[in-house]
Amino acid sequence: MTQQNRRVVLASRPVGEPKDSDFRLESAAVPEPGPGQVLARTLWLSLDPYMRGRMSDAKSYAKPVGIGEVMTGGTVAEVERSNDPKFAPGDLVLGMGGWQEYAVMEGKELRKLDPNAAPLSTHLGVLGMPGMTAYTGLLNIGQPKPGETVAVAAATGPVGSLVGQIAKMKGCRAVGIAGGPDKCRALTQEFGFDAAVDHRAPGFPEKLKAACPNGIDIYFENVGGAVWDAVFPLLNDFARVPVCGLIANYNMTELPPGPDRTPQLFRAVLTKRLTIRGFIVWDFAAQAREFATEVGQWLREGRIKYREDVVEGLENAPQAFMGLLKGRNFGKLVVRVAGT
Amino acid sequence: MTQQNRRVVLASRPVGEPKDSDFRLESAAVPEPGPGQVLARTLWLSLDPYMRGRMSDAKSYAKPVGIGEVMTGGTVAEVERSNDPKFAPGDLVLGMGGWQEYAVMEGKELRKLDPNAAPLSTHLGVLGMPGMTAYTGLLNIGQPKPGETVAVAAATGPVGSLVGQIAKMKGCRAVGIAGGPDKCRALTQEFGFDAAVDHRAPGFPEKLKAACPNGIDIYFENVGGAVWDAVFPLLNDFARVPVCGLIANYNMTELPPGPDRTPQLFRAVLTKRLTIRGFIVWDFAAQAREFATEVGQWLREGRIKYREDVVEGLENAPQAFMGLLKGRNFGKLVVRVAGT
Repeated sequence: MTQQNRRVVLASRPVGEPKDSDFRLESAAVPEPGPGQVLARTLWLSLDPYMRGRMSDAKSYAKPVGIGEVMTGGTVAEVERSNDPKFAPGDLVLGMGGWQEYAVMEGKELRKLDPNAAPLSTHLGVLGMPGMTAYTGLLNIGQPKPGETVAVAAATGPVGSLVGQIAKMKGCRAVGIAGGPDKCRALTQEFGFDAAVDHRAPGFPEKLKAACPNGIDIYFENVGGAVWDAVFPLLNDFARVPVCGLIANYNMTELPPGPDRTPQLFRAVLTKRLTIRGFIVWDFAAQAREFATEVGQWLREGRIKYREDVVEGLENAPQAFMGLLKGRNFGKLVVRVAGT
Repeated sequence: MTQQNRRVVLASRPVGEPKDSDFRLESAAVPEPGPGQVLARTLWLSLDPYMRGRMSDAKSYAKPVGIGEVMTGGTVAEVERSNDPKFAPGDLVLGMGGWQEYAVMEGKELRKLDPNAAPLSTHLGVLGMPGMTAYTGLLNIGQPKPGETVAVAAATGPVGSLVGQIAKMKGCRAVGIAGGPDKCRALTQEFGFDAAVDHRAPGFPEKLKAACPNGIDIYFENVGGAVWDAVFPLLNDFARVPVCGLIANYNMTELPPGPDRTPQLFRAVLTKRLTIRGFIVWDFAAQAREFATEVGQWLREGRIKYREDVVEGLENAPQAFMGLLKGRNFGKLVVRVAGT
């Protein structure tokens, strides 16, 4: 009997919130690696907000997942067969294996991992794409200076929690925004933020204002929506707004009702001399080594903390992903696809 | 009889478009300079869009003009009496004398002008604040690279015309947007733009698109409104948008009807990795000497052209200013307050 590969494919393009029927769990034969390729067994699958964009065919910076295609995703995997001399069975690799138990990947697109350097799943979080998003966006675009106030939403997530912790190292006041009292408690008690504000609690804008007595110099934008509305009036002259995500908008099916506030935004850009700049982590690919070295060092020294939300089993990935879009995860969301 | 000083004061704060009754021409005694001060006779008064902002008491980067106070404005003036040893009667100076025939100014806020270096009025235009706005905004924020497309509106104005000409020097395609066929003709025939598009003509968005076959890499934003709407879909990945003015919005009394397009803007910022950054020329004050040297040189060499729209007499300043907000001027708008 051929060995089977369970995988989650995109069944239909979601309109608004993704639902169960937009995904399909199916079984197929484990594929064969071609020349230069590697077959690897998925150990860890990363679930990240950007995947919502890939489910849509609106023009974006990356190609959408096709209907019937395996959902895209970063993975930590163990090499089973290799047609690339740089990899051997048993090697642990980081790649884009997608939502499936086995993946064939190009050897040149894989990075070998040292299992003794750090827990394997951290390569999908604090030491991976989300961590590098925080690091490059905050340092290159945010350019934090001692004494400034840095605000970030989804602050217990892998991006936000690192933004806040790096901000602290740079001598800034770190203000985290998260949903619910447990996450807010973690922000100040685990992650060392100066203040935490619950965006689901009544009076959120006033509480955010109180938490930022000197205004906001850097707002690391990864959510949009109501959080942006509360942040906007607090931005100081010369504030910087790196934009790496807009999770609150991803399920939007139409623009919100009027008035059109675009002129208000531009007026603030002009009079306050704001910088609003979008980025994707790979725009700063040249800094990958610097990131890995510096953040790896901080992690080993215990200077930064991270939190994971582990889901067991590939079959639970769709539900977990839908929860992610609603902020139900608490820390970096990863799926344990196979025991390690 | 005491010598009289005619001056234009702010009579009331305009709601929407300024009207005649928002200004008042009045006469007062010529003031006496105090210690360190200089009394100067205004030769040239600059009229600029930013003045609309000063007529309003909405929070901005500069204090509003008070009701009954002289309208603010840059001037070229001749010193009559001086209590600052650095200035003597007959000296020509650049300062902020305002809309009046005589002004007392702090000596330390004046710059002495060499009447042989360049026509005096150019210190209010191509060699002055508007020119430096174009130079610093385009070079620092726009960062033009050879082969890129630079678009600018109000393109026959003192800012836009220099943006386009510097863009050409940097090897870019310069696309100018202006109102009416005469201005568009001047853009290509006088100023050397590669293309000119009339924002008042039917099919403006389509014509702009046709004029930018490779999209837009830098949009120098000084108008907002319908021009921004046409530019927005044409912005390329990594486009830069220096924002130094929003003249189309200045008379806005309420936000336009919905939907609220802010999420659309942020989505583009993210997926196209746009940079939108506001600035005021004085944010780059440290580059004043470099600007004066380089642009002065270009002007002497005939590498850049400029155009002035001269209004005769202080009493005509309010009408001319109201026309400026409607794009009625053709070139840098200056008022000849006294013969030179």
